Amino acid sequence: MSQATNQSWGGRFSEPTDAFVERFTASVSFDQRLARQDIQGSIAHATMLARVGVLTDDERDAIVGGLGEIRDEIERGEFEWSVPLEDVHMNIEARLTDKIGITGKKLHTGRSRNDQVATDIRLFLRDEIDVIEVELARLRDGMIELADREADTIMPGFTHLQTAQPVTFGHHLLAWQEMLARDHERLLDCRKRVNVLPLGAAALAGTTYPIDRHVTAELLGFERPAENSLDAVSDRDFAIEFTSFASILLMHLSRMSEELVLWTSAQFDFIDLPDRFCTGSSIMPQKKNPDVPELVRGKTGRVYGHLMGLLTLMKSQPLAYNKDNQEDKEPLFDAIDTVRDCLKAFADMVPAIEPKKASMYEAARRGFSTATDLADYLVRKGVAFRDAHEIVGQSVAFGLREKKDLSEMTLDELKQFSSIIEQDVFEVLTLEGSVAARNHIGGTAPDQVRAAAQRAREALNVLKEAM
Amino acid sequence: MSQATNQSWGGRFSEPTDAFVERFTASVSFDQRLARQDIQGSIAHATMLARVGVLTDDERDAIVGGLGEIRDEIERGEFEWSVPLEDVHMNIEARLTDKIGITGKKLHTGRSRNDQVATDIRLFLRDEIDVIEVELARLRDGMIELADREADTIMPGFTHLQTAQPVTFGHHLLAWQEMLARDHERLLDCRKRVNVLPLGAAALAGTTYPIDRHVTAELLGFERPAENSLDAVSDRDFAIEFTSFASILLMHLSRMSEELVLWTSAQFDFIDLPDRFCTGSSIMPQKKNPDVPELVRGKTGRVYGHLMGLLTLMKSQPLAYNKDNQEDKEPLFDAIDTVRDCLKAFADMVPAIEPKKASMYEAARRGFSTATDLADYLVRKGVAFRDAHEIVGQSVAFGLREKKDLSEMTLDELKQFSSIIEQDVFEVLTLEGSVAARNHIGGTAPDQVRAAAQRAREALNVLKEAM
Amino acid sequence: MSQATNQSWGGRFSEPTDAFVERFTASVSFDQRLARQDIQGSIAHATMLARVGVLTDDERDAIVGGLGEIRDEIERGEFEWSVPLEDVHMNIEARLTDKIGITGKKLHTGRSRNDQVATDIRLFLRDEIDVIEVELARLRDGMIELADREADTIMPGFTHLQTAQPVTFGHHLLAWQEMLARDHERLLDCRKRVNVLPLGAAALAGTTYPIDRHVTAELLGFERPAENSLDAVSDRDFAIEFTSFASILLMHLSRMSEELVLWTSAQFDFIDLPDRFCTGSSIMPQKKNPDVPELVRGKTGRVYGHLMGLLTLMKSQPLAYNKDNQEDKEPLFDAIDTVRDCLKAFADMVPAIEPKKASMYEAARRGFSTATDLADYLVRKGVAFRDAHEIVGQSVAFGLREKKDLSEMTLDELKQFSSIIEQDVFEVLTLEGSVAARNHIGGTAPDQVRAAAQRAREALNVLKEAM
Amino acid sequence: MSQATNQSWGGRFSEPTDAFVERFTASVSFDQRLARQDIQGSIAHATMLARVGVLTDDERDAIVGGLGEIRDEIERGEFEWSVPLEDVHMNIEARLTDKIGITGKKLHTGRSRNDQVATDIRLFLRDEIDVIEVELARLRDGMIELADREADTIMPGFTHLQTAQPVTFGHHLLAWQEMLARDHERLLDCRKRVNVLPLGAAALAGTTYPIDRHVTAELLGFERPAENSLDAVSDRDFAIEFTSFASILLMHLSRMSEELVLWTSAQFDFIDLPDRFCTGSSIMPQKKNPDVPELVRGKTGRVYGHLMGLLTLMKSQPLAYNKDNQEDKEPLFDAIDTVRDCLKAFADMVPAIEPKKASMYEAARRGFSTATDLADYLVRKGVAFRDAHEIVGQSVAFGLREKKDLSEMTLDELKQFSSIIEQDVFEVLTLEGSVAARNHIGGTAPDQVRAAAQRAREALNVLKEAM
Repeated sequence: MSQATNQSWGGRFSEPTDAFVERFTASVSFDQRLARQDIQGSIAHATMLARVGVLTDDERDAIVGGLGEIRDEIERGEFEWSVPLEDVHMNIEARLTDKIGITGKKLHTGRSRNDQVATDIRLFLRDEIDVIEVELARLRDGMIELADREADTIMPGFTHLQTAQPVTFGHHLLAWQEMLARDHERLLDCRKRVNVLPLGAAALAGTTYPIDRHVTAELLGFERPAENSLDAVSDRDFAIEFTSFASILLMHLSRMSEELVLWTSAQFDFIDLPDRFCTGSSIMPQKKNPDVPELVRGKTGRVYGHLMGLLTLMKSQPLAYNKDNQEDKEPLFDAIDTVRDCLKAFADMVPAIEPKKASMYEAARRGFSTATDLADYLVRKGVAFRDAHEIVGQSVAFGLREKKDLSEMTLDELKQFSSIIEQDVFEVLTLEGSVAARNHIGGTAPDQVRAAAQRAREALNVLKEAM
Repeated sequence: MSQATNQSWGGRFSEPTDAFVERFTASVSFDQRLARQDIQGSIAHATMLARVGVLTDDERDAIVGGLGEIRDEIERGEFEWSVPLEDVHMNIEARLTDKIGITGKKLHTGRSRNDQVATDIRLFLRDEIDVIEVELARLRDGMIELADREADTIMPGFTHLQTAQPVTFGHHLLAWQEMLARDHERLLDCRKRVNVLPLGAAALAGTTYPIDRHVTAELLGFERPAENSLDAVSDRDFAIEFTSFASILLMHLSRMSEELVLWTSAQFDFIDLPDRFCTGSSIMPQKKNPDVPELVRGKTGRVYGHLMGLLTLMKSQPLAYNKDNQEDKEPLFDAIDTVRDCLKAFADMVPAIEPKKASMYEAARRGFSTATDLADYLVRKGVAFRDAHEIVGQSVAFGLREKKDLSEMTLDELKQFSSIIEQDVFEVLTLEGSVAARNHIGGTAPDQVRAAAQRAREALNVLKEAM
Repeated sequence: MSQATNQSWGGRFSEPTDAFVERFTASVSFDQRLARQDIQGSIAHATMLARVGVLTDDERDAIVGGLGEIRDEIERGEFEWSVPLEDVHMNIEARLTDKIGITGKKLHTGRSRNDQVATDIRLFLRDEIDVIEVELARLRDGMIELADREADTIMPGFTHLQTAQPVTFGHHLLAWQEMLARDHERLLDCRKRVNVLPLGAAALAGTTYPIDRHVTAELLGFERPAENSLDAVSDRDFAIEFTSFASILLMHLSRMSEELVLWTSAQFDFIDLPDRFCTGSSIMPQKKNPDVPELVRGKTGRVYGHLMGLLTLMKSQPLAYNKDNQEDKEPLFDAIDTVRDCLKAFADMVPAIEPKKASMYEAARRGFSTATDLADYLVRKGVAFRDAHEIVGQSVAFGLREKKDLSEMTLDELKQFSSIIEQDVFEVLTLEGSVAARNHIGGTAPDQVRAAAQRAREALNVLKEAM
Repeated sequence: MSQATNQSWGGRFSEPTDAFVERFTASVSFDQRLARQDIQGSIAHATMLARVGVLTDDERDAIVGGLGEIRDEIERGEFEWSVPLEDVHMNIEARLTDKIGITGKKLHTGRSRNDQVATDIRLFLRDEIDVIEVELARLRDGMIELADREADTIMPGFTHLQTAQPVTFGHHLLAWQEMLARDHERLLDCRKRVNVLPLGAAALAGTTYPIDRHVTAELLGFERPAENSLDAVSDRDFAIEFTSFASILLMHLSRMSEELVLWTSAQFDFIDLPDRFCTGSSIMPQKKNPDVPELVRGKTGRVYGHLMGLLTLMKSQPLAYNKDNQEDKEPLFDAIDTVRDCLKAFADMVPAIEPKKASMYEAARRGFSTATDLADYLVRKGVAFRDAHEIVGQSVAFGLREKKDLSEMTLDELKQFSSIIEQDVFEVLTLEGSVAARNHIGGTAPDQVRAAAQRAREALNVLKEAM
């Protein structure tokens, strides 16, 4: 057995840990990422222990001082991580004892690694959520501004990827923004449940020392102590809930990415992405590939996988802490990194999207996109909707044969299908008339789009002020 | 082409739908479950259309009357569902036109099946969430009451399924309850985002009729209209978010189930489940199997699967509505049913759990469960924690050899390992002393358990009053 | 307790099953689908029992006769399924005893529902695999024939959805066919592991009766008896492996569907799907939506979900049978149905795809699809590949500015970038020249496509002869 | 734009790649793991190019020599990886050109990174499969030997975690072994489909150079060239199929782990795990935790997650290569590492399991585990099985009241329930009699267990000889 390991729990054991097992079960290669939060939690713990008299003020000062030095060593990259010391907690504690002697051993009074690691992850995740929120708000901002700018830009709206009705590009961008607004809400709902203090649960049942968990909670900015010690050490809902948020967010980004990939194809040709967000081919000299949206779309799988992994991890685990839970960190860390990087990439890229307005407009003119407008026109003239639908269906069949869109037909041609049609029909058959007519909350009329952008901006600002 | 299909969209088509395709693409076999909500939404839509002058009051009355009759036919099981009519919407509309003639065709003015189905599902899910909330509250109630009753009942607490420290059965039950309290919060957070009105988005872009979506929202009890029409018809976040809630809840139930299965085994023998929750074997006459927790544990997979299915469904879908989305209903319905039934089974069963207190107590006495208390005792006498840990480790090794638990050793035997140990050690080595000493918020001391049960009861009552 | 239930295992129980629990734990609503295989297995079991002397020949005849009558009742829809009788096995056994008296009770000798249900599912899955194999072969056939027909039809090949190099439509279809060929192999590999007999494992440990499992295996067409009774009743690998096959297959179909949806869009306009595979819109009269590929793409989620559900189900289950396993059937059944229906829909649809050759050709002419050919031309004239890449990159930049594809430039224009270019360059810049030049196994040259189609046809015929 | 990037594909581009995008889209941080295979593939490619006359022998020798030196640099850890060079391929090619000048640029003739990376991964996975197969065989070996040794060791068999019937520990271990035998088959089935050569597909359509793919395939030990170039660059089935194999394997290991955790609990106390496979607690001095099985159980989630991630990745991707596919490597690598490490941990640990035979035997004596034997005894005396079941049910109820197992009752006590019972009943009520009576293939009789171990050993040896 490595001597280090021995110090922590070896007394009852009669043979050393197998060398492969030591490496296999150690977590320090990835949980060292929690070092800053581990130290932050330890400082708060020591401060509380002094407050209630378990440590003297001198002991507390030695511990706090030593931990501060260790934090600096880690930040400078000078800290030597040891696999036999298993994890971030024992590495830091061992170093503290090196530094300040036996007082370092008193830091672990009234806590266990079970509540310590739960505290570290919650602190870490809370910090990362705050970073993610900034990127998310930046992306929403850019989207709203672009939408406002493009409130009048007409493009075809699709259902089933078939031309359906004209919409404006600004309206489309605000649909994306709505997805992100929900993600933002879910992130904040998740943060509420992250922000609870496990420390004080000790191994599983609480501790016999006269700790004051409200003090620790306040020092660490947690809203309240966790209500139950068994639950506090075994709960990983917060990691699952974050990963669920992340999965839905990435799903949204995959949808936007899919559209960006379509729109940059030669076939759609709706937008340009600046060269700096694209890469080329080592073999085909003409290629300019929309790598960023493709890669983000691909990363959806990774995040879904982490969600499934964490759900599987927790399935059927009896209380309280089991070693299985060591597997919570890598998927959570990777989900965090993926969300942050994808949001950053999108927040940089979206404002740089260059719509090719003429191409969008031309596409909207094709595909009989105002057929519904013609049907509505007939209804307003007294035709029942189902009958109007039939009349327009016949006009479309004629147009397909003659290769003419509705607005390209003469009045006489249109009158073949219904004598009710008059000269004023051409107003509703224009793309501008079509979008302007959808003039209610949620509709694609440019004025509605601008108003929606303004409401979105205000709602986002409320959140930003709270950040 | 079936004539029925023809009426709805056939005008542009030159050959009938393939018979297998008609069956393959129809949804009426499962979406008829939305009939009540479809009618509720249609009544609100017609009422709004009359309010803004698109329908006359007489037309509205005819429609509302006809829909009421259809609802009754469906409830009496007399309605004949038709596959060629594709879905619940066309089935009901066709029947309405049968009943009230051409006015029935006016109902679809200013809407599309795209916004209609989104509205139906949201209404349906909202109704089901309210039913689920009642069962969840009932289960929490039963758990809190049982916990309060068993606040003093001592059992072994486990980590790694190894005896760790004594806890009380009430404390363990409150750990379960905390999981459910978070689920309850998540359910209500999800409900907020369900409760938004898509109707008025029409096919994808809004409509040219002068609709008033605030009126429709109010009539249907929705908090507000959806902000963007493209998003409104393509958003299925609410289904995913509900299924995510359901997955975490089932994960919790799987953990409780795992423990119930363990505890009813001959090896643990901690509880009895009444015969009415168990079944026997067709071949082994002595068997009494804990079927209900086993089956609930098994149903976890089903719900995880639905979550993954819905996330996959939405991945990479371009806006707005695509036929893929027809696949949203079956997993959502099954997740709802599973959650409701599992909660009902647990809400019935949990209060009937019969703890076998003597057996629990005896198990807690074995396994050196008060070893930590002995270490803490030594620390209070001035020994550093790590040294105390070593001393106790040696005592345990002695106990394993001599087959004596710590509390069964004589004072002299204990003094072998540290001369500091005195007669007062036996107080901390009792199970009662051990649990009573963990006397802080979240700890397992019976007084803390009772206080926690009281706080849980009050928090639940606040939610129940809002229901 | 319902009397029926009582008969099977009630002796040890002191109160009836709770009515809700009875419904909650019953499986007859879905496992009745196994009735045919349950009877088939019972007939083989009874035949074997008579062979070894546990039943008399008269008893066997009575049982076999009774079971045959029951099978007819079920097929005629006259059988009354009872929920209190829990499952398909007890329903059929109870009916048998009704019919032939006490001899019916002897059928269950030497077996248990644990090995019985495992046998039923394997028989059922084997039957369904054989049906699926036929549909899969039919689809492959249609694809190969279409590919052969379209071996010369030029279309753009894409990477990153950007025009890359010209390929032929036949080549593209054979890429699809390769996916299915692997699926076919996996299906047959799975079938090998399905085709093993669990019967004789009894509840978990085997039986004390002198059964001959080789006889039963032979009667049921199984390759061999399962080697271990504990494993035989608890193994569900075959269901997971089938669902894994199904997930990969549906992933393939989702890729083909994605392309079909793209190709039928106005923007791509590469193919027509006959009206009989499409549906329209209730509101937009011009719409013709590619419902079948969209729906198949959507069904991918369902099958992925079942795979994840089954994997979750089995995670951490201790041996041998647990009630959890009742949850194996619904996902398996649904995966089977989905695979079969999606294959049928594709097998009907694929041969009816109508390529719009002119549109494909025109798209291939745009986008500098022969840029690689120009680079290869330069390399053959002695330019290093990386330098050739640079020269062609500049030509493309020129073409983008001047809106000219490479083949539309004059020789002088091309010579600006490299004086090595001569008149013979135009041969390699044609689409026909480009595809013909990729003339090796796996390449897109029409001759290679025809040869590949022929090899595919032969490989498939080998499998078909074994079916 | 970094100069390095420029060299490879920059000609068409007018601004440098964004610095964050460069990092975000680069894969070299993880795909450098493919370096050995990348070089192996390049050597074979150069050899083939020389064989067909595209390279001179001198050029080939320069390339092969340079690549050999680079491989050594990498193995010595002296190679400097560059992020601007994007990936392992460009890093190695750039270094080759540094070393041997312009000839290095000729290596990429007739291939693309698309077929190159597909080749690298297949070579890598094939190598790893072979390593995994060795560990899997070692684990199976250890299990078979332990099973053979413990063929007579009696323990309780469980269903529903309730005592069911006595089995032998050897029989239980062979149930585990059967799971692994299927995994072994699936691994080899997967290997067949991995072992196909993509190289020669070039970017997507094949190449205009006169390559000979059969030569390359033979040089690299592949069974055959891939049949279709579009499929060859876009197919990732092999990664999914491997991850599916891995998921089922980990599911099996999770089941074994669950049982090991149960068996080392104080409640079961069936086995000891040597200290070297366990760890202790930093706070509870008495703890000895079964970390290895717990951690392996936890790692199940990780592998399921990768499977779901890869399936999601490929869903709906149009042909041929898309940037999304860069996301295939990390999950595959991690699945490989997890499988290999978990198998190694188990292969080391399983032979060291120490059964506590007395404790197992005693547990089997409790719980009326021979109740089925009593029922079978009655049937052999002429009682119908269902009636025998009822008689035994009453005996069990009596035993529960009197706290006597069946074998502890007197003949008179047993005769209360059926006068048919005679002195010879006690033979069938012993544990030894019970297990010995299940004496058919697959049954738990010690002779059958030994014979099954022998068959398993022989089947494994056949595979080992082929390795």
